[in-house]
Amino acid sequence: MDTGKRCAAEFIGTFWLVFGGCGSAVLSAAFPEVGIGLLGVAFAFGLTVLTMAYAIGHVSGCHLNPAVSVGLVTGGRFPIADLAPYIIAQVLGGIAGAGVLYVIASGKAGFSLAGGFASNGYAEHSPGGYSMVAALVAEFVLTFMFLFIILGSTDKRAPSGFAPIAIGLGLTLIHLIGIPVTNLSVNPARSTGPAVFVGGWALAQLWLFWVAPIAGAAVAGIVYRAVFAAKPVEPAKTK
Amino acid sequence: MDTGKRCAAEFIGTFWLVFGGCGSAVLSAAFPEVGIGLLGVAFAFGLTVLTMAYAIGHVSGCHLNPAVSVGLVTGGRFPIADLAPYIIAQVLGGIAGAGVLYVIASGKAGFSLAGGFASNGYAEHSPGGYSMVAALVAEFVLTFMFLFIILGSTDKRAPSGFAPIAIGLGLTLIHLIGIPVTNLSVNPARSTGPAVFVGGWALAQLWLFWVAPIAGAAVAGIVYRAVFAAKPVEPAKTK
Amino acid sequence: MDTGKRCAAEFIGTFWLVFGGCGSAVLSAAFPEVGIGLLGVAFAFGLTVLTMAYAIGHVSGCHLNPAVSVGLVTGGRFPIADLAPYIIAQVLGGIAGAGVLYVIASGKAGFSLAGGFASNGYAEHSPGGYSMVAALVAEFVLTFMFLFIILGSTDKRAPSGFAPIAIGLGLTLIHLIGIPVTNLSVNPARSTGPAVFVGGWALAQLWLFWVAPIAGAAVAGIVYRAVFAAKPVEPAKTK
Amino acid sequence: MDTGKRCAAEFIGTFWLVFGGCGSAVLSAAFPEVGIGLLGVAFAFGLTVLTMAYAIGHVSGCHLNPAVSVGLVTGGRFPIADLAPYIIAQVLGGIAGAGVLYVIASGKAGFSLAGGFASNGYAEHSPGGYSMVAALVAEFVLTFMFLFIILGSTDKRAPSGFAPIAIGLGLTLIHLIGIPVTNLSVNPARSTGPAVFVGGWALAQLWLFWVAPIAGAAVAGIVYRAVFAAKPVEPAKTK
Repeated sequence: MDTGKRCAAEFIGTFWLVFGGCGSAVLSAAFPEVGIGLLGVAFAFGLTVLTMAYAIGHVSGCHLNPAVSVGLVTGGRFPIADLAPYIIAQVLGGIAGAGVLYVIASGKAGFSLAGGFASNGYAEHSPGGYSMVAALVAEFVLTFMFLFIILGSTDKRAPSGFAPIAIGLGLTLIHLIGIPVTNLSVNPARSTGPAVFVGGWALAQLWLFWVAPIAGAAVAGIVYRAVFAAKPVEPAKTK
Repeated sequence: MDTGKRCAAEFIGTFWLVFGGCGSAVLSAAFPEVGIGLLGVAFAFGLTVLTMAYAIGHVSGCHLNPAVSVGLVTGGRFPIADLAPYIIAQVLGGIAGAGVLYVIASGKAGFSLAGGFASNGYAEHSPGGYSMVAALVAEFVLTFMFLFIILGSTDKRAPSGFAPIAIGLGLTLIHLIGIPVTNLSVNPARSTGPAVFVGGWALAQLWLFWVAPIAGAAVAGIVYRAVFAAKPVEPAKTK
Repeated sequence: MDTGKRCAAEFIGTFWLVFGGCGSAVLSAAFPEVGIGLLGVAFAFGLTVLTMAYAIGHVSGCHLNPAVSVGLVTGGRFPIADLAPYIIAQVLGGIAGAGVLYVIASGKAGFSLAGGFASNGYAEHSPGGYSMVAALVAEFVLTFMFLFIILGSTDKRAPSGFAPIAIGLGLTLIHLIGIPVTNLSVNPARSTGPAVFVGGWALAQLWLFWVAPIAGAAVAGIVYRAVFAAKPVEPAKTK
Repeated sequence: MDTGKRCAAEFIGTFWLVFGGCGSAVLSAAFPEVGIGLLGVAFAFGLTVLTMAYAIGHVSGCHLNPAVSVGLVTGGRFPIADLAPYIIAQVLGGIAGAGVLYVIASGKAGFSLAGGFASNGYAEHSPGGYSMVAALVAEFVLTFMFLFIILGSTDKRAPSGFAPIAIGLGLTLIHLIGIPVTNLSVNPARSTGPAVFVGGWALAQLWLFWVAPIAGAAVAGIVYRAVFAAKPVEPAKTK
């Protein structure tokens, strides 16, 4: 399939990840008495990926995340030539998701972006007050493990068809661990979406949510390819 | 299989969607101390579809939703000749589901339809006080994405057998995002069931939950067919 | 496989259903601050069936429930000659599950069977105060739908291997709807287990949790076989 | 694949089990207002196993647990010669997981290991105040059933590819039942990780979380092999 269609799929998928994940956090997490809490938000983020992986996996591979695309490059599964268009589509999709969420969320009296709009942050903007170092370690390790799950479950030796379940519920698990630390990113496009609307501190802290996830993902790709791959892998070529 | 049996399956399936989804909301969501909350209601709605998709997918395709049937028509997957009988079966099933729920719910002293009976609403009848515009946008976008998940995960290029998981948990995700906005419909039959019993405002606002989901679904079918389908699709014929 | 081994599997499986489902309710549901609530109990019951269906489905078919065995007989899927030994194994397994749970639960100071021990009940023993008629309707309808899910998802035309997911999460869904009404049975063996330990009212109300589930299951078997089966079904013979 | 790579996979997988499972407990369970509770912790532990089973099942079999390795030996599925290196890798992975968790958790002002750091315990260190006997029974029975699920769902007669779902969600179920009793182990490596950091009582009570899980697992392997195995099983040899 041509790159335009694959990027359209990445745009829609990342739109869904940010709209659905951040949307559940902004609209439903703290609803009085019966709110879904962080557990519900964790399921929401994971299910955006599970649903899209079955819906567009056959189109674009369903990365929805610049860190995932980078880790698949270092893991020898994705051609570097496609990296830039994928990342652009993902970031635009993330911003669009935050935009549509803003339209809905602002339809309630008293809504304010000052509530954070599900932006990622550390130190004084960490939900639980965790330091910048804790945030760096958490985002690095959790993205490393996210890519490890992706690379392993899509390995040809793994059972066919189940990877979207492992990857989607893996993202749920990652949120169960880390929301209190950074509001959980592991995905620069997810962080960029709401930060564009919140501005100020959210943009000032955005660097960490590009650097740490991409670093963790890149290392995971290298490690999996070197240690666990079935055999030496040729660099992938553009489809 | 003949249309009568397929419509019988749609009737039972939509009965289950409304009885189970709205039932969990009415009976269990706000149970003191240990209630299942909106997270439990979101799982309940999603699991009605997951269970029925495995139980009757091979009979009727398991639409359970007039918007889904419309989106499958515009997506070239379902013959328009079958649309009317499917929608009639779905609406009757939804009303039956609300009816049986009423029999059970009214077996508790103090039950009243004035509690809303899980009806969908906007503005002063939105659970979180969201405006009519927010409701329209949410129902349109969420139904668009619901159909996108359905069309993608049942594409011949997607892994076989997993679509009920993607679609069912996709509906869970959609509820995690949107219950505070409209009590979440994306399904005119689901909205019609309880509205028939509540009457008044629920019937007066029912139009939105026919218009927005069907519009979102129809557009999704057109977009998927035009952009992501494997090749030009012939209009489907009656089985 | 011989009947003895199949009954041993049914014993262990029903032990697990009662120990795990009732155990989560007794030990964890109302744990201070972080208890799992009815949502957690609903997942626990469903996951006992999901796990056992994958673990012993190839041994005994994993009924774990006299109503399921009856519904599979009326649906033409299970030989009536095996019904009695299966039901005996299931009831003994359920009592054993409640027994081991009692050993653990009574290891905490202040434990008392007067708390109900997860027994099923109606009217003054319904968790939410629902009438006997509401309980009868709920147990009949929910068991009917449980069998409908079982018969449909194990139909040869349904995707292979996924039935345990549909059936297990179907039981979760059923609990999400109905715990407030009767503490939810749909399974005479599950009801009998704790009732033997609680005695008194629990034994006095036990009849309903044999009659309604078995009736609902029997009717579901007849309906599915008459309307939805692929073709006329021969009575099953002992393997 | 050589033993070194398989042990590397076991190290990473057990790292993930302890970091993710204990991490969700330490960081997220009791977060104010929207904490994930014991239900979220139960999902987190289960999803560590589900994700790793798809990611490294094809490398090492994904035991992540000395009790599992022992039960697979007694069940005739794993060569005893590989037992020691697997257990060493698992324990080291568990300690590493607790170590990285410590780095993150201590990045919040006021963190203290005196909170327990998700260690397992009984009697005065049982979350719900359960006795040592209750703890022994619970850990024995729950590990027995965990191995029963593993042995059954990976039986050649069970549907292919689904075992990680049954096993992962089986561990979720086990936590739903037993966290109040012992904080739930069924895994000596999981218990050892945080105990090394907490010291004192956690190390003093650690014996129970080696003895009971390994005993339960060993018996399960013997029972499954004797009663339910397809045919007499030859002792496994090193791959």
